[in-house]
Amino acid sequence: MICSQIILLTFLLLSAIPASERKNSLNLMPMPEKVEFLQGEFRLDSTFTVSVTGGNEVLLNKAVLRILKRLTDRTGLFLLNLSPRIGLDDNIHGMLINSKSPGKNELEMDESYSLIIKSEEISLTAQTDVGILRGLETFLQLVDADQQGYFFPAIKIEDKPRFKWRGLLMDVCRHFMPVEVLKRNLDAMAAVKMNVFHWHLTEDQGFRIECKTYPKLHELGSDGFYYTQQEIKEIVSYAGERGIRVVPEFDLPGHATSWLVGYPKLASAPGPYSIERNWGIFDPTFDPTKEETYEFLEKFFQEMAPLFPDKFWHIGGDENKGHQWDANPEIQKFMKANNLTDNHALQNYFNIRLEKILNKLDKTMVGWYTDAQPNLDKKYVIQSWKGRNSLYESARNGYRCLLSHGFYIDLIQSTEYHYLNDPIPQDSILAEDVQNRILGGEATMWAEFVGPETVDSRIWPRTAAIAERLWSPGTVNDLKEMYRRLDEIDFRLEELGLTHNKNYDMMLRRLAGNADIDALKTFVDVIEPQYTYARDHPHVFKSYYPLTRVVDAARPDPRTARKFDQLVDSLIIHSGKNHSEMDALKGWLNRWKDNHSKLSEIIKKSPILKEIEIQSQNLSRCAVIGLQILEHIKKGIKPDETWINNQSEIIKNAQIPKGETELLVANSLEKLLNEVKSSDSRLFKP
Amino acid sequence: MICSQIILLTFLLLSAIPASERKNSLNLMPMPEKVEFLQGEFRLDSTFTVSVTGGNEVLLNKAVLRILKRLTDRTGLFLLNLSPRIGLDDNIHGMLINSKSPGKNELEMDESYSLIIKSEEISLTAQTDVGILRGLETFLQLVDADQQGYFFPAIKIEDKPRFKWRGLLMDVCRHFMPVEVLKRNLDAMAAVKMNVFHWHLTEDQGFRIECKTYPKLHELGSDGFYYTQQEIKEIVSYAGERGIRVVPEFDLPGHATSWLVGYPKLASAPGPYSIERNWGIFDPTFDPTKEETYEFLEKFFQEMAPLFPDKFWHIGGDENKGHQWDANPEIQKFMKANNLTDNHALQNYFNIRLEKILNKLDKTMVGWYTDAQPNLDKKYVIQSWKGRNSLYESARNGYRCLLSHGFYIDLIQSTEYHYLNDPIPQDSILAEDVQNRILGGEATMWAEFVGPETVDSRIWPRTAAIAERLWSPGTVNDLKEMYRRLDEIDFRLEELGLTHNKNYDMMLRRLAGNADIDALKTFVDVIEPQYTYARDHPHVFKSYYPLTRVVDAARPDPRTARKFDQLVDSLIIHSGKNHSEMDALKGWLNRWKDNHSKLSEIIKKSPILKEIEIQSQNLSRCAVIGLQILEHIKKGIKPDETWINNQSEIIKNAQIPKGETELLVANSLEKLLNEVKSSDSRLFKP
Repeated sequence: MICSQIILLTFLLLSAIPASERKNSLNLMPMPEKVEFLQGEFRLDSTFTVSVTGGNEVLLNKAVLRILKRLTDRTGLFLLNLSPRIGLDDNIHGMLINSKSPGKNELEMDESYSLIIKSEEISLTAQTDVGILRGLETFLQLVDADQQGYFFPAIKIEDKPRFKWRGLLMDVCRHFMPVEVLKRNLDAMAAVKMNVFHWHLTEDQGFRIECKTYPKLHELGSDGFYYTQQEIKEIVSYAGERGIRVVPEFDLPGHATSWLVGYPKLASAPGPYSIERNWGIFDPTFDPTKEETYEFLEKFFQEMAPLFPDKFWHIGGDENKGHQWDANPEIQKFMKANNLTDNHALQNYFNIRLEKILNKLDKTMVGWYTDAQPNLDKKYVIQSWKGRNSLYESARNGYRCLLSHGFYIDLIQSTEYHYLNDPIPQDSILAEDVQNRILGGEATMWAEFVGPETVDSRIWPRTAAIAERLWSPGTVNDLKEMYRRLDEIDFRLEELGLTHNKNYDMMLRRLAGNADIDALKTFVDVIEPQYTYARDHPHVFKSYYPLTRVVDAARPDPRTARKFDQLVDSLIIHSGKNHSEMDALKGWLNRWKDNHSKLSEIIKKSPILKEIEIQSQNLSRCAVIGLQILEHIKKGIKPDETWINNQSEIIKNAQIPKGETELLVANSLEKLLNEVKSSDSRLFKP
Repeated sequence: MICSQIILLTFLLLSAIPASERKNSLNLMPMPEKVEFLQGEFRLDSTFTVSVTGGNEVLLNKAVLRILKRLTDRTGLFLLNLSPRIGLDDNIHGMLINSKSPGKNELEMDESYSLIIKSEEISLTAQTDVGILRGLETFLQLVDADQQGYFFPAIKIEDKPRFKWRGLLMDVCRHFMPVEVLKRNLDAMAAVKMNVFHWHLTEDQGFRIECKTYPKLHELGSDGFYYTQQEIKEIVSYAGERGIRVVPEFDLPGHATSWLVGYPKLASAPGPYSIERNWGIFDPTFDPTKEETYEFLEKFFQEMAPLFPDKFWHIGGDENKGHQWDANPEIQKFMKANNLTDNHALQNYFNIRLEKILNKLDKTMVGWYTDAQPNLDKKYVIQSWKGRNSLYESARNGYRCLLSHGFYIDLIQSTEYHYLNDPIPQDSILAEDVQNRILGGEATMWAEFVGPETVDSRIWPRTAAIAERLWSPGTVNDLKEMYRRLDEIDFRLEELGLTHNKNYDMMLRRLAGNADIDALKTFVDVIEPQYTYARDHPHVFKSYYPLTRVVDAARPDPRTARKFDQLVDSLIIHSGKNHSEMDALKGWLNRWKDNHSKLSEIIKKSPILKEIEIQSQNLSRCAVIGLQILEHIKKGIKPDETWINNQSEIIKNAQIPKGETELLVANSLEKLLNEVKSSDSRLFKP
């Protein structure tokens, strides 16, 4: 009796929680458009069954199998049957899925769905199979547990995306990414409802696709690291089954060294060429004045086109400085003869020629907007890496466009920064037709400083926040709430095979030369790789250098540093009067204070750690400063200016990157010290 | 001056260390045949270069690249050049490699090598490329570090294997293993000098290879999980480049359900058949009396043979109980007509027919020895899973043979057990020719209870100890020293992409439903999956049930439990008088004592952990007993019998498996309690 009374009480308490707060207990990302709580919950047991009607039976069957596999992996339940029942069958304990039509995997796909969970039944309906796929991921994010077992909260969700194009670019050229790396990232994209895989397949440093017409492209341009056409088909089909379009990029006319290794005659300067081993912008460029170039590219595209069923086709077009064009008298002559006044005009000529070839293949061209607006058909889609103003300019000029500026995840910026990078902010005054031409955006995973071992940790979890930015209503932008859900999604993504968490400890073990990584982890938890553009100045890196150093193990926007920084903010807001914040800060600072003496023992045996020795010492020094400040706050005595200035020097020193990493804690302490220093500091008011 | 004096002193001290002790500082596994220390060391820097002469240039070039990649990954060094120089070039700072001949990847391959490291130069020579491959792995295991940087000790190693056949069987049928799982395990095999990958490709639960002649084999027999012929070639070539032979197994005439799904007419009983979803021994068996069977198998083998260049061909042959044969009147008639007196005779008839087919394809048959000795050509190689006596019987009968009994790594036994399972123990009285017919052995990774996520943790690190048993002299058998090196090799293997360590934490995170896994890890560190044969009685498992429970995360022979057990042994040996042992034991016990209260909070939120709740409570209870015993020892007062009996009951209870796992610590405490109980216990003597 007592037991049922408690349950009743709990039930009443739960019912009393306002909907907005209950929503904040959900671990959904991206957050759906509409969420409404219902009474009760659906309890999960081994008789759980899924029934499917409508849509593409094979595709939905596979999708349900995948979802149920993940559900049983997570819950350990021995479901009696993983295969869905096909056809109308509503006499089940489980989920009824109804897809109105298979739909198409294309830009205009309908991804909306409706998910209703009641205590006796779950129903998922959508206009197309892609909507069902999106809804299944929401379904899986809703699984919850209590002492009685696993359950789903009773809920009604109506959902659809805000933007049509929610992409992730993967550069597989600077460092090659094997098929299994792509597959697990496609799975993760699907988990957060992204729908475009932008496959950057050619670069100065590598040509990554098998070509039967011109085999020297992959044979001489790839060091043996390329995708066979069979593998390309496999990835395209894998993506398609997950409602993800694949847009290939063949970067032209620059970024082209690897093409020219096998076919130097296509270049704007005499060869020979060899695969580029450095990072940067290089001269080798196709010769846009030769008819041979277009014959070559037309045959090449003809071979490639059937491999990529999507309508869109990325031709790159970025960072061609035209040095080879300037130096080539024949090209100069051609430009004069054709009234092409500068290199932009020549590149525009090239693009128009490409566009004609692609039109014949029924492909729509996509390119990086560089400097001048192109003079192309308005079908052309412009991918902006130069900020929202250039994006809006393109849209106003009648082009459809994508935002990538602000989503450059290779640069190591905070999740917050990417999350707030709304292609159309809430206060936008853009006209509706201009807004409609903004298709969405893409996170870009350029691969100078990542390999198969580290790439996941640069993409995830931050890209989940970008996915939410592009899917959820613009009003979903609470940072604290985003981080709460992100921390949950972060480790849920591991079930898809992502290595962003598990490779962290592994890399630390390798660095420490043994299994005891406590001190090293304490340190690396609060540092971050330096801003990427600052890492390779002057250019010293070779593409074959190891990616196993501390900077590679360190992760963008590390959780510990972020939480410490939030604590410092709270302390300041609460004028240092909150004891639990004080204690939490002290706990961290005490740990860091003693950490260097422990870590330096490991560094002695691991020369690879030598480059962060000063950084580790700085962490302990900063911790001492932090503890002294807290002591001052506690006593209510403001430290004198000399002391403050001395500590400020130490902190400034600690902010200098070492081993290409930054000590984030130093920034938090600088903020705290500045508050201490300020004449109207709240910290010393009684 | 002081500095150089210190260096000199250190040098003198080092020189004074006896060679046997210095040998014990090496982290080599398998231990080479002969190791001799020289004076000094070779210091590693970014100018390190490798020069290669002789052998197969392409193969050695790739091998050197792989080794230098691993070397730079581990040291973080920016080597100026990863590619070796080809041809005579001894004017380098680095390693001179000389291979006398390419050699062949076959049973009789010469794997010997000589590695000499001096302060100014490293030289690696071998009769064949395979010898070079083996030597390169030894070279990489020798890398060491001090505060000045990375170095190799000056040393002279002459090495060759004791047994010719050092294999790992992987069952890819019970659970499919994707290509990347095989590749990383092949890399690990090469790292510990194993040379045979035994690929168990067909089973009741799955037919895992594409067949063009009979496409229904893989189309209907695999659930879509099979290797394309392209992938087969890729794996065979990948193995070959690492000096590993690939021996395919097509299990016949039993274990054949998946073949018969597409081709039921070949069975000994009418179909239809469907892919088996349970574990065990099943009836579906080829009909050995129909000529059609042999026509089918001959065509099948003809298609398969070119894919597997190795001479040896495994036909399985195990666990056919002959139920279908007994029940089929036509088969019974055939047996009478051909004077085949029992099912063994019939299976022997089948084997002889297969042998003829394989002889035409220039293949030598390998099979599991089941009951009777076969009446086959003496070329036949017998793989013994029934213990050394049956092995010796086969060898005495003139057959070449392999030991697998004692190397069944799927069963979850200790490394020690496998390590001491010498095919020819030191005191063997076998005649030399009989000994010579014992080719070696194979670890067998049967896959009822492992998937891609957990398989590495069942194979590694234990298989490294088996590799040493089969490579190193039989006199290398010190357990303490083996475990010391194994603990090192264990995490070094991670650099090859193995997941045996990194998936552990990941699985615990998933089980705990969040990132805080301390209490769960403390518990799982001291349990072990139950002995495999005990897990599925009565048969309840389905092949699609999750492998994500605690029993799956738990690892065989876990280090913490092993170290605790060693501490208990030491305590007893030292009569409880050693304080550091006492303190170490207390440290563990105190941690465990409080662990259940922490873990039970996690269990409340993670129903998947419910099944080990009692086990967790038992750990804390056992810890309390342990602490009380230590207290008694400290006071020198033997506890009374009632108390001992009561505790004994608690421990016995804790020894009952829960959630298919065993609490190893309970066994250590039982040992300690028995010592306490014994009348001549040393623990209470003053």
